Amino acid sequence: MAQFSDIDKLAVSTLRLLSVDQVESAQSGHPGAPLGLAPVAHVIFKQLRCNPDNQHWINRDRFVLSNGHSCALLYSMLHLLGYDYTIEDLRKFREVNSKTPGHPEFHSPGVEVSSGPLGQGVSNAVGMAIAQANFAATYNEQGFPISDSYTFAIVGDGCLQEGVASETSSLAGHLKLGNLITFYDNNSITIDGKISYSFDEDVLKRYEAYGWEVMEVDKGDDDMESISSALEKAKLSKDKPTIIKVTTTIGYGSLQQGSESVHGSALKPDDVKQLKQRWGFDPSKSFVVPQEVYDYYKKTIVEPGQKLNEEWDKMFEEYKTKFPEKGKELQRRLDGELPQGWEKHLPSFTPNDEALATRKASQQVLTDLVQVLPELIGGSADLTPSNLTRWEGAVDFQPPITQHGNYAGRYIRYGVREHGMGAIMNGISAFGANYKPYGGTFLNFVSYAAGAVRLAALSGNPVIWVATHDSIGLGEDGPTHQPIETLAHLRAIPNMHVWRPADGNETSAAYYSAINSKRTPSVVALSRQTLPQLEHSSFEKALKGGYVVHDIENPDIILASTGSEVSISIDAAKQLYETKKIKARVVSMPDFYTFDRQSEEYRFSILPDGVPIMSFEVLATVSWGKYAHQSFGLDEFGRSGKGPDIYKLFDFTATGVATRAEKTINYYKGKQLLSPMGRAF
Amino acid sequence: MAQFSDIDKLAVSTLRLLSVDQVESAQSGHPGAPLGLAPVAHVIFKQLRCNPDNQHWINRDRFVLSNGHSCALLYSMLHLLGYDYTIEDLRKFREVNSKTPGHPEFHSPGVEVSSGPLGQGVSNAVGMAIAQANFAATYNEQGFPISDSYTFAIVGDGCLQEGVASETSSLAGHLKLGNLITFYDNNSITIDGKISYSFDEDVLKRYEAYGWEVMEVDKGDDDMESISSALEKAKLSKDKPTIIKVTTTIGYGSLQQGSESVHGSALKPDDVKQLKQRWGFDPSKSFVVPQEVYDYYKKTIVEPGQKLNEEWDKMFEEYKTKFPEKGKELQRRLDGELPQGWEKHLPSFTPNDEALATRKASQQVLTDLVQVLPELIGGSADLTPSNLTRWEGAVDFQPPITQHGNYAGRYIRYGVREHGMGAIMNGISAFGANYKPYGGTFLNFVSYAAGAVRLAALSGNPVIWVATHDSIGLGEDGPTHQPIETLAHLRAIPNMHVWRPADGNETSAAYYSAINSKRTPSVVALSRQTLPQLEHSSFEKALKGGYVVHDIENPDIILASTGSEVSISIDAAKQLYETKKIKARVVSMPDFYTFDRQSEEYRFSILPDGVPIMSFEVLATVSWGKYAHQSFGLDEFGRSGKGPDIYKLFDFTATGVATRAEKTINYYKGKQLLSPMGRAF
Repeated sequence: MAQFSDIDKLAVSTLRLLSVDQVESAQSGHPGAPLGLAPVAHVIFKQLRCNPDNQHWINRDRFVLSNGHSCALLYSMLHLLGYDYTIEDLRKFREVNSKTPGHPEFHSPGVEVSSGPLGQGVSNAVGMAIAQANFAATYNEQGFPISDSYTFAIVGDGCLQEGVASETSSLAGHLKLGNLITFYDNNSITIDGKISYSFDEDVLKRYEAYGWEVMEVDKGDDDMESISSALEKAKLSKDKPTIIKVTTTIGYGSLQQGSESVHGSALKPDDVKQLKQRWGFDPSKSFVVPQEVYDYYKKTIVEPGQKLNEEWDKMFEEYKTKFPEKGKELQRRLDGELPQGWEKHLPSFTPNDEALATRKASQQVLTDLVQVLPELIGGSADLTPSNLTRWEGAVDFQPPITQHGNYAGRYIRYGVREHGMGAIMNGISAFGANYKPYGGTFLNFVSYAAGAVRLAALSGNPVIWVATHDSIGLGEDGPTHQPIETLAHLRAIPNMHVWRPADGNETSAAYYSAINSKRTPSVVALSRQTLPQLEHSSFEKALKGGYVVHDIENPDIILASTGSEVSISIDAAKQLYETKKIKARVVSMPDFYTFDRQSEEYRFSILPDGVPIMSFEVLATVSWGKYAHQSFGLDEFGRSGKGPDIYKLFDFTATGVATRAEKTINYYKGKQLLSPMGRAF
Repeated sequence: MAQFSDIDKLAVSTLRLLSVDQVESAQSGHPGAPLGLAPVAHVIFKQLRCNPDNQHWINRDRFVLSNGHSCALLYSMLHLLGYDYTIEDLRKFREVNSKTPGHPEFHSPGVEVSSGPLGQGVSNAVGMAIAQANFAATYNEQGFPISDSYTFAIVGDGCLQEGVASETSSLAGHLKLGNLITFYDNNSITIDGKISYSFDEDVLKRYEAYGWEVMEVDKGDDDMESISSALEKAKLSKDKPTIIKVTTTIGYGSLQQGSESVHGSALKPDDVKQLKQRWGFDPSKSFVVPQEVYDYYKKTIVEPGQKLNEEWDKMFEEYKTKFPEKGKELQRRLDGELPQGWEKHLPSFTPNDEALATRKASQQVLTDLVQVLPELIGGSADLTPSNLTRWEGAVDFQPPITQHGNYAGRYIRYGVREHGMGAIMNGISAFGANYKPYGGTFLNFVSYAAGAVRLAALSGNPVIWVATHDSIGLGEDGPTHQPIETLAHLRAIPNMHVWRPADGNETSAAYYSAINSKRTPSVVALSRQTLPQLEHSSFEKALKGGYVVHDIENPDIILASTGSEVSISIDAAKQLYETKKIKARVVSMPDFYTFDRQSEEYRFSILPDGVPIMSFEVLATVSWGKYAHQSFGLDEFGRSGKGPDIYKLFDFTATGVATRAEKTINYYKGKQLLSPMGRAF
């Protein structure tokens, strides 16, 4: 059992005061949780396998601060360990473009994931633990423990109230993730006051029901021995994740300790003064670190971590000799490279190929890619036979004892937990080793996961949402299941690919882009209904995000469209020419994000000045304002009925499009038209 | 204890076969759950207090089918009870514009809420139970049980996997809602196959941890006595909600019973045939109802329900005599009317009034309105001191025993459960009695509740989201908390007011609209930061959704803006004129939804042809394409820092706006400009 002495206490006091000083410096932030949690953080880090000089070492332990608002504590710790934070960085807490923003952000040194939106961090930790289990099962060999790291998380009451944490905790229990150890900061206070205003459930009993190991530490404010021995015991729990309920005092030591007033704003100067005096620090000084604390952390955490990293490097060199194929693959993954020529495995289609729902084309893609991309790991939120996310012969990622699969399996049964799936994918991606997680659900239910989707974009996790049943075309399930606002929502998120391919070739392009992406997540919206293979669709052109798929010289109108509506637009264009000699060009716009990143010259060659542009997409029209003068779409909820019947009901047919195209041409006749894309600044 | 005899069995067989026939008729739908759940539904309805001739009777019991995909069962039951469904309606199952869509929709007779998105229905039920408890505590008097109804729900495994159900179940336990009785259909099968692929938690233990009463029925396929006696026992649990785990066989009786293949598609003809034979029905006939089944339901459910309704009506008449004031108020609420002159209580402001964050203006509004609107009931997802949703002297809605409040209290402590809050608000609204629920969180975290928000719009629940901290202006909490895509997302949802008031008067207008709304929910986006009371802002004009707030004749440019950006736009306009004699009109657009519903004449008077229109809003620009030629906004994530510093960083200042306005004018100089609002069709 670990022993704790005066130097540990001094380190904890230093952590506490560095955190308080950050909040004082900003006159904004959260001193309460750091004061309460410093001993927990100290105990965790004291045994954490990490190397500040090589922060992305794949066999490091991960630490996630799920109650991200207490980040001053994390920055204090990372500074003391020698991560790239100066005292000046701490002083700039919560200042624009500092390394120490108001909640942890992934780009700051040593921060594993952006956290703060409650429930996300601990769910990311579940994802990391899944990735670790899969990674270990895939690469470990007798005598070569390539991966045996743990994931640690601290969560607050708020995280535990959030549904997303319930979803992922339930799944973590099911998956028997013994590599996951969570500390629950039971400080009885939330922003509103006593936690008992809204929450009096028996948290540990709930986690037992999920299949977790549960423990309790009563005196979290100073009893490091008990925290530490709980942690050691948790490490022995190989087939269950562990939650350790640690009772702490929010704002420990402050004159306002134990009350909500210490949660979210700077302490008063007098209070800071007495805190420093209490712990033997000079109250006239700020940001003080006794040299022995630096030295202690260096000796007990940093140097052992560096040594372990070196040993691991040596082991990995031997591994590459002894298991050349796996070693090469692993090295490639650690380098963040894809296998050469992987893209040749993407299916390609000709107009003579059979009509396919794009969800089926997606299944072909996945089936082909899993063979060459061991980093591809995915599943579905209980819609496997609808999302078609599983390939033949897939092995489920499951605890072997369940006989449903094993940890080397790469198909994840997420259950009906969309938000949890999103947060877990982010965690898998954040684990590293080039993992490319994908997850399937109906496009409409990506909304359930909006909290995690935006964090993928914000944290630069290039995860892939396989979002099938992407319109009213899904038919009978009706408006509760039919997306309307969803694409507009997703397209408005910064750093987000939103693909809606029109056929097989465009589906391959969407996946090509998504798999290649280093820092941008992708949603791939796919049809339930069958779509023809277009005559002039093109993998290469689709990779520009928008291109001419049906051309004619000097068009009278441009029809801009996506997904299932592209073939209808082409039919409309043909009909317009055949019946009225009206010349319509059809543009397929599978991904706005990609299109917006093409040269101005290219973009204007597709959507030029001087021609009326009409969009056609059977969802909310709002996102088309930047490309089209007129929009044909659906700004109301759908209906339950056969897909084709609903399309007819709303006049979403070739004739319906042609009629509106003609009206658009007439409306603008004689008027000077500018492409909506023109930018004045 | 209820006795069940042959007629009950016949009724259950009829329910099962009517459900199977609907799916057969549509050749689409879910036969599995109705076959398994018919006995549960029969037992629930046999004691359900309802009156098909007066389906909105306020003291009816509510029944919610949370696993909405089994709606064929509900339609069968409602038909048998004499709700307005003919056999022909059942035959049109899942046809466009039928009364029997693929998931229950609120506009169909006897359907309490639109359900199907998993986890929502049972969460709505929690909201209904909250409303009932509040309603009873507010209006019941000795000898006058105005409200003593129950809320029943059936949930499937899928609902229990969803986080939103975890959130609301935890809160229901905390609130000790003894009026809520839930049946958990433990059929061990999901779309993916065995539930054990993803879910092996001990559900009842979890619910015990939440503070629920838990029970089990082993033989749910036919043991109606046990189901019934569990239900009777549940009714005695006055201070705990109850969950009854009923083990059933999915697709009971089918040749494919107990497998996922019976979940979501029509049975084979042979299978249907043997089912009918097994239960003594003519296999050559469909949609058969033995007359004695109609008679039995009439005698045991419908007539007793009518009688209870009549007795209640009589009691209510006496109540109105004995408690004239409360009686009048209650009658008004049941009529769906607001008190005369309520709007006079909305605060109004002059330019001389102090600058106020709109979240503070919102607090004034709420403080004033709670006095005159007893139907106003609200709270916050643990951000009360930030959202400013609580009024002085508010009493919390809490079980009296906790000493935190009582059931007549109207301030709800939702805890950190945004999605749950959304679903509960929908349920409170669906309860009736004119309840106007509101709920506070940061605008960014409305996204967590996207699933419930869209259902509010789809189901026409006029709930109010008090969405504070509505931009990067929130400052130091940083990009994890700063909305970017959120307004674009919400504005793309059909039937949704999205208000972003610029000052106090516009805030009053937003609430006036929201409270008056009968079938459209509202999000009111409010600033954290202080905003001046504008010189020409106007309550009346704001109610048009968009209006000129700073005018000048023959403008060179129109600046269209919302919320905190309106005053900056006005400053920019003044600066442009003072420094360069450039004439800029400023338009405040607090709610696009309302503006879009004004006359064409009015709309074009605000945003006419011939003038460049530039929008300014510090969020994603995409929703402005339909109004503006150029958009100044934020299509990337924000930063952690002081609000004003972040505004400066992105040049969101009067000078920044003025510069871009000038560029816009120059860009379009000499070109013919059409208002983007012009519609060709």
